[in-house]
Amino acid sequence: MRIIVIGGVAAGAKAAAKARRADPNNEIIIYQDEAEVSYSACGLPYVISGVIDNERKVVIRQPEDFAKDGIQVLIRHRVIEIDTIKQQINVKNLQTNTDTVVAYDRLILATGARPIVPAIEGITLEGVLTLRNITDLARFKTLLTAIQPIQAVIIGAGYIGLELAESFHELNIKTTIVEKAVRILPKFDPEMAQPVHDHLLENQVELMLGDGLAKLHGDNGRVTAVETESGKILAADLVVVAIGVRPNVELAKIAGIELGPTGAIAVDSRMETRTPGIFAAGDCCESVNRITGAPIWMPLGDIANLQGRVAGENAAGGNAHFPGVFGTAIFKTFKLTVAITGLSEQVAQESGFDPISIVMAGSDRARYYPGKQGFSLKLIASRKDGRLLGAQVIGQGSADKMIDIIATALLGKLTCYDLENADLAYSPPFSPVLSPIIVAAGILNSQLTQLV
Amino acid sequence: MRIIVIGGVAAGAKAAAKARRADPNNEIIIYQDEAEVSYSACGLPYVISGVIDNERKVVIRQPEDFAKDGIQVLIRHRVIEIDTIKQQINVKNLQTNTDTVVAYDRLILATGARPIVPAIEGITLEGVLTLRNITDLARFKTLLTAIQPIQAVIIGAGYIGLELAESFHELNIKTTIVEKAVRILPKFDPEMAQPVHDHLLENQVELMLGDGLAKLHGDNGRVTAVETESGKILAADLVVVAIGVRPNVELAKIAGIELGPTGAIAVDSRMETRTPGIFAAGDCCESVNRITGAPIWMPLGDIANLQGRVAGENAAGGNAHFPGVFGTAIFKTFKLTVAITGLSEQVAQESGFDPISIVMAGSDRARYYPGKQGFSLKLIASRKDGRLLGAQVIGQGSADKMIDIIATALLGKLTCYDLENADLAYSPPFSPVLSPIIVAAGILNSQLTQLV
Repeated sequence: MRIIVIGGVAAGAKAAAKARRADPNNEIIIYQDEAEVSYSACGLPYVISGVIDNERKVVIRQPEDFAKDGIQVLIRHRVIEIDTIKQQINVKNLQTNTDTVVAYDRLILATGARPIVPAIEGITLEGVLTLRNITDLARFKTLLTAIQPIQAVIIGAGYIGLELAESFHELNIKTTIVEKAVRILPKFDPEMAQPVHDHLLENQVELMLGDGLAKLHGDNGRVTAVETESGKILAADLVVVAIGVRPNVELAKIAGIELGPTGAIAVDSRMETRTPGIFAAGDCCESVNRITGAPIWMPLGDIANLQGRVAGENAAGGNAHFPGVFGTAIFKTFKLTVAITGLSEQVAQESGFDPISIVMAGSDRARYYPGKQGFSLKLIASRKDGRLLGAQVIGQGSADKMIDIIATALLGKLTCYDLENADLAYSPPFSPVLSPIIVAAGILNSQLTQLV
Repeated sequence: MRIIVIGGVAAGAKAAAKARRADPNNEIIIYQDEAEVSYSACGLPYVISGVIDNERKVVIRQPEDFAKDGIQVLIRHRVIEIDTIKQQINVKNLQTNTDTVVAYDRLILATGARPIVPAIEGITLEGVLTLRNITDLARFKTLLTAIQPIQAVIIGAGYIGLELAESFHELNIKTTIVEKAVRILPKFDPEMAQPVHDHLLENQVELMLGDGLAKLHGDNGRVTAVETESGKILAADLVVVAIGVRPNVELAKIAGIELGPTGAIAVDSRMETRTPGIFAAGDCCESVNRITGAPIWMPLGDIANLQGRVAGENAAGGNAHFPGVFGTAIFKTFKLTVAITGLSEQVAQESGFDPISIVMAGSDRARYYPGKQGFSLKLIASRKDGRLLGAQVIGQGSADKMIDIIATALLGKLTCYDLENADLAYSPPFSPVLSPIIVAAGILNSQLTQLV
C-alpha cells in the first residue's frame, strides 16, 4: 500500500513516522514544497532573537533521517492537484518545474496554514515580512543582516506579534504593535489581558489599538512607513504582518474534500475526511472543542502532532481516535507567561453557560522560600453544577504548571469541589502549602455552596 | 458554642480560621504546647541551611493575628486529658504549671505527630537531635552556633534525612546517612530511587544502607560517635534521628477516641472521629487512599491544611467532606526533585492490581531551547482497563509539574488513552511539543492495545 503525505512540517512528519511504526510494509512518501521538513515553527521567534543560537537547531529531522526509516521525502515538490476518483495526485518538482502523476492508496493532508496578508498598497515592499515557516525565517535573517532595522511595526497583537516584540527588544529594535481590536489578546478575558498590555508598555513596546493597517509607504522598493486606517504614519524599516493565519485548504477544496464550518478541512475523530481514504491533520483541519462539542480550529504545533499521530496510524489501517481539544495555549512575552485553557468567561457565556469566576494572585513557592515568583490566576466554572470550564494564567513562576493542572482537570470533567480536594505536590521550593489552584477552586466552591 | 482546637501548627490553625469564617458567633480557642503556633514545619530544613535567612519567616501567624479574628490562642498550654462524657478538657499551663478544666461544645484534635526516637544508650546526649517542630529548630540553631559541627550522621534516609543532607552540605558539614533498609526511598520503585542514591554520593553524602543505629557514644555528655548494628563506629558531633514519625494519639486513645488500622485517629469524610462532636485533622489522623480505598496515614503539611479546613467548617456546623488522598509527595535534595503520586508499581501489585509501567527520560523545554532540564518519569497503569495508578518523577526542570498533572489525572480516574490525548500547554520555553506525560501515556496505551 502506498501512503502519500502532503506536507512534512509537524503533522505530516508525525503522521508518516507513526504510519511507518504501525506497519513497516507500506510505501510512504512525503511531498513538501519548502526546502526543509520536520522543523519547529514555534521556535522561529527565538532564532530571530538569538536565544536559539543556530537556526539549524529548530530542524528536527532531515530527509535522510526519514529515509533510514523507509520514508521517502521529496522536498521542493508541490502537490498541485488531487484526483480523489483515480486516487492520484499531480506533483510539481519546483526545481525542474516538471509535473508527475503519482497514485496513492491512502492520502494524508498536512498542508498547514499560512499568514493572512491583506492585498494593500505596498504589501510587496522589501522589509514587509510574515513569520510562519522556515522560508520566512530565511527572509528575516537576510533582512536583519542586510539592513539592521531600528524601527519595527508589528501588525497584530496575537501571540506571534507578542513573541516577536520580545525578539525585537532583544535586538534593540524599537517596536510598535498596531492592532485592529481595541485590546490585545482577544481570547483572554479583559482583566487578564491588561497586565500583559502593561508589561509590553514597561518594555518600551508601543501599542496602537483600535487601528488597522491601511497601506505601506516605500522608497526604492523598500518599506519606510506604515499608514494606519486612522491616518497615522509610523516610520518603519521592518514591518511584520501577524494578523492571523488561515488553513491551506485550496488543494482539498478543489478536489471536492469537504470543509467544516471553521473553513478548515472537516474530519472525524479518526482524522479521516469526508472522502474515505483521505486523512487530514494539523493546521489544515478542524478539531472539536471538548467542552462545547463545537468545531474549533486550533492551528498549534502540539495539536498537529497529536492529530498526525492518529492520522498516520489510521492511514496504515489502524483505528486510533483523536477526541478533540480544550483550547489550551501558552506563550511567553518578555518576562510573562501567558496561558489559557478551556473557555474564557466571555466564550463560556456565549456558549450558553452561566459561568462564575475568581481572579487571584498566586505564587510558585512557600511565601517564605526565596526566589518565589507570582502570577494571576483566573478560574472559571459553571454555576449550574460546578464543572470547571477554563482558566487563564498570566505571570511568572509556575504559571505553566497551573494551566496544565486545569487542562487535566478539564479532561477529567472535574468540578470545583473535586479540584478543591486535589492532592497536589507540596514542599516549600515547589508550591505554597495549598496550591493556588486549590485555593481558587475552594473559593468558587464556597460561592456555589452559598447559592444552594 | 465553644470550639476548642488542640494544637495550632497547620491543621489546627487552619481549622480554627475556617471555623471562624464559617460562623463568626462561636468562641474558638486554640491550645498549643509550644511557644509558637501557625508555622511551617516543612520550611525548617531551609532555615538550618540558611536558604531561609530568618527563622521568623516560617512563622505564618502570631497569636495576636488570631486574636484579631476573634480566635483565642493559648501557647505553652498542654491539654492533658479529654473527658468526652462531660465534654471538657484539662489543660496545663506550662508556664505556671497549673491545671484548668474547660468545657467544649466541639473539639478538634490537631495534635500532630512526633519523631520516632529509639530508647537506646546515649540517645539523650547533647548533639542528638530530631527535626520536627520549631522547638527542635531552636535546639538545632543553638547547637550549630555553639559547636559548629563538622561531622554529622543522619539516621534514616526518608525525606527529612535527605533534605537535611543538603542543608548540612550547605553548612560544610560532612554527612553520613545510616538507613536500616537496603535502599533509600522505600516508597519509590527501586529504579527511581537509584538516581537519587547516585546523586547523594556525587554530593559527598556517604550512605550506609542495611544498617541501623545501635547506640551513641559520648564524652562529657556530648555525642562523639554513632555505633551501628553491624558494629561500625562513625565519628559524629551531630546526630539527627529521622527514622520516621508516629501520630500523637495518646490523649485521644486514653479518652476512648477510636484509632484506625494505621494507628492514627479514625475519622469519617467529615473529619469527625467515632466520638460525635470531636473532629481530628492533620498528622494525628488517618486518610483514605482514593485508589485502593484503604486507610492511609499521610502526615504532610498540605493534607493537614485540607483536612483542617474540613474539620473547622464541620465543627462550626457545616457539612464539608474530605475525600482522601492519592499519596502525592515531593521534596528536593541537592539538585534533584523527588516526587511521587498514586501507587508505586510495587504497592500496585501488593494492592491487587496488575500494573504495567514505563520509565522514560523527559525534559521541560523544546529540545532546541536553551537551558532545558531533564528528569526521569515513571508512569504506572492498570493492565485491565488502562486506568492510571501512579507516577514517580526524579530530576530537574518541570518534575513537579509532571507529578501535579498525573495527580490531577488520578483525581479524574483517567486512563492512559485519556492522558495520551491531554491538551497540555506547549510552547518551546515551557515544554517539548508533546509533553513527556503524553508520550509516556501513549507508550503505555499502545502496550495495552497490543495486548487486546
